[in-house]
Order: sequence, then C-alpha cells, then structure tokens
Amino acid sequence: MADTLTIWTYDWVPPGPRGFVRDLRLRWAAEEAGLAHEVRTVPFDDRETNHLDRQPFGQVPFLTDGEVSIFESGACLLHLAGKSEALMPRDASGAAATLQWVVAALNSIEMVTVPWWFLSLSGQEDNGLTGWMDKRLQQLEAVLREREWLAADRFTVADLVMADVLRVSKLRAHGERPASEAYVARVTDRSAFRKAHAAQFAHFAAADERRA
Amino acid sequence: MADTLTIWTYDWVPPGPRGFVRDLRLRWAAEEAGLAHEVRTVPFDDRETNHLDRQPFGQVPFLTDGEVSIFESGACLLHLAGKSEALMPRDASGAAATLQWVVAALNSIEMVTVPWWFLSLSGQEDNGLTGWMDKRLQQLEAVLREREWLAADRFTVADLVMADVLRVSKLRAHGERPASEAYVARVTDRSAFRKAHAAQFAHFAAADERRA
Repeated sequence: MADTLTIWTYDWVPPGPRGFVRDLRLRWAAEEAGLAHEVRTVPFDDRETNHLDRQPFGQVPFLTDGEVSIFESGACLLHLAGKSEALMPRDASGAAATLQWVVAALNSIEMVTVPWWFLSLSGQEDNGLTGWMDKRLQQLEAVLREREWLAADRFTVADLVMADVLRVSKLRAHGERPASEAYVARVTDRSAFRKAHAAQFAHFAAADERRA
Repeated sequence: MADTLTIWTYDWVPPGPRGFVRDLRLRWAAEEAGLAHEVRTVPFDDRETNHLDRQPFGQVPFLTDGEVSIFESGACLLHLAGKSEALMPRDASGAAATLQWVVAALNSIEMVTVPWWFLSLSGQEDNGLTGWMDKRLQQLEAVLREREWLAADRFTVADLVMADVLRVSKLRAHGERPASEAYVARVTDRSAFRKAHAAQFAHFAAADERRA
C-alpha cells in the first residue's frame, strides 16, 4: 500500500479567510503534480492550544506523508516538489532558481506584505511598512515585466507561492503594478488553482452545515 | 577542477550591521560542513541598482556554485544542506523536520521580528506588531524549553538560521525567554559560528582601510 499523502487543515473557518487558508497552497501543488491525497482536519475552535504538538504556532496546514510529518506551507511545498518535476525542474540550475524564488516569496515579499496587511487591518493602510513594501513590490514588478514565470522559463512551485502571496485583495488594490497583476491572473487561471480553490470553499461550506 | 563555491557579499558596510550581514549564515554553514569556499564582493555603494541582475532586491548574499547561481540566504542554506549531512540529516523524517524549521525561522519568526525591528528603529518598540511577535516568540520558547535542537535531536541548518534570527540584540532585550536565550548562547558558541563571525568582521575592517 502506498503511503497516504494527507493535507491537514481546520475543520471550519469563518467566511473571511476562505479561499486564503494556506492549505490551498498544498491542495494546489498536489493538483499540479497529480498527487493523490486526502484532506483531514483539526478543530478551528481552541486552535491555539489543541494541536501544538503537530504545529507549534497553532496554525495550519501541515502534511503527513507516510512516516513524515511536516508543517509550514513553504516547507510542505518543497517537500511535495521533491516528488514531482511538475513542481520543480530536476536540473541543478532550474532547481536552484525555483528554490530561491520560493524563499523570496516567503522571506522577501511575504515578510513585508503580511505584516503590512496585519497593520492595515486597524485602518492604517499608510503605516510604517508601506514605503518598504512599495519598494519590494516595485522591484518584483521589474522582474515580472521581463518574464512570464519566475524560474526556468516554466511554471514551478515558486510561481504557485508567489502568486498566492500577491493575490491578496488589499495588496492588489494598493499601487499600480500591471506586470504583477497580469502574472497573478495568469498563474491563478490554471485549472489546478481553480480546482483547489473550489475544493477549499466546498470543504468549509460543508462544515457550515455541520455547525448549524 | 572542482567547482568553486563562492559567497558574494558587499565590499564594505558601515560598522552597525557588521556581524549581522546575511553572508554570515553562508560562511557559518560552509564552516560547519567543511566546504571550501571563497568570498567575493559587489559594491555597497549604489547597491540598490548595481547588481539587480544577480539579486533583484539589491541585497546580499548570493552564492555561485559552478553553473548554479542562487540568492536568498534561506535558499542558499538549503542548497548547501544538499551538499553535507552536517547541515541536514539524510533520512526522510530528519530532512523534513530540518526543512520545516528552516522555513519556520524565515516565515513564522523572522516574518514578524524583522518588521517589528524595522518599526522599532523609529523608536516605537511598542508598535502594532509587538503583540503578535510576543505570541510567536512565546510559542517558540515553549518548544525550546523541551529540546536542545529544533530538528532530529542534533544541530542542523535549522538551528543555524533560527539562532541567527533570534540573536538580534534588540530582540533579546525585549521580553524574558530563558530557554530561547540559552539556545542562542548554545548555538552561537559553536566554533563554526565564531570563525564565520570573526571572518565577516575582518572582511569589512579590511575594507575600511581601502576606503580611508
């Protein structure tokens, strides 16, 4: 029997974050790579204490793959990329370019956009991180003006995570970055994204009925 | 002839960031793994425009390894980890645990601590990110209270990057986290760290003389 690949997420979330819970990245990657998987859940209620042994920050997703258990969506994506060339090329240069852009999405872009978004929740869109973020997003815009995909002239898991970072509504509404906007549209038009996105919505909608 | 491993950094930085420029992570990893390497430079002056073809955010470090070129310190560390078991265990569970903690350092801890530090530069130590950061650091403290190393019961590259994230002075002075403090002391007491740290200081000090 093959090891079962299991994506763990919450059993339910409120409507706001649906479509953005990070298990989407793993569902999407599994669809791109044609990896059979199942989705299982931990309770959203008391999430900050009830599964700390599996995810010490009380978050989702995490992934189990036979004996392996791994959290952090970025780490899970790199783990999945090890299973399929559909996510990451196998030549040394293509693999390095993919790896660098996965980390750039997480540690050069999301490191600024998520805290900016967090501060903006209290109404401060022009906050102490806006200038720094605008600079980073313009640097990325310059890259995306010159190429269709971030790494190796083809879709990779780096595009998956970067597009997921950039597609946040508040971010797209902030500033003019036509190449980035076209990139997000191009990457999220993939059938694997649409399938994963619909599956996440259906998963949480089904939970609404159970909670009702 | 073996491919030359080259760590690229700035030719000079002001005294403030010395000891913290991210090429330290790569020097340290190379020392841990016993990987022969050289250090080469790009100019600090006009850094935001003069090497965008090699690092699109105008930063350092980046790494060249034969035909491979790779930026983002986290990606470079994972690339180096592929060369040496000293940095990452080779069994599937140990490798996954190392990978998840490398990404956690970059995307769950540094994603909050660096923007917090950035905001604190303007004197706001109690800023909009302080509560979120305190929560994350306490969650990590709970983990470090129970174990000596993050992954696989041994030193890995995950400890290297996490300790580098946590050793920032302003962060250590903020809050009481004895297990984290002991962890930082333990990891940075390694001879490979001390050697890399001294080498970075010497590198920039030598440049002072050239600039004088």
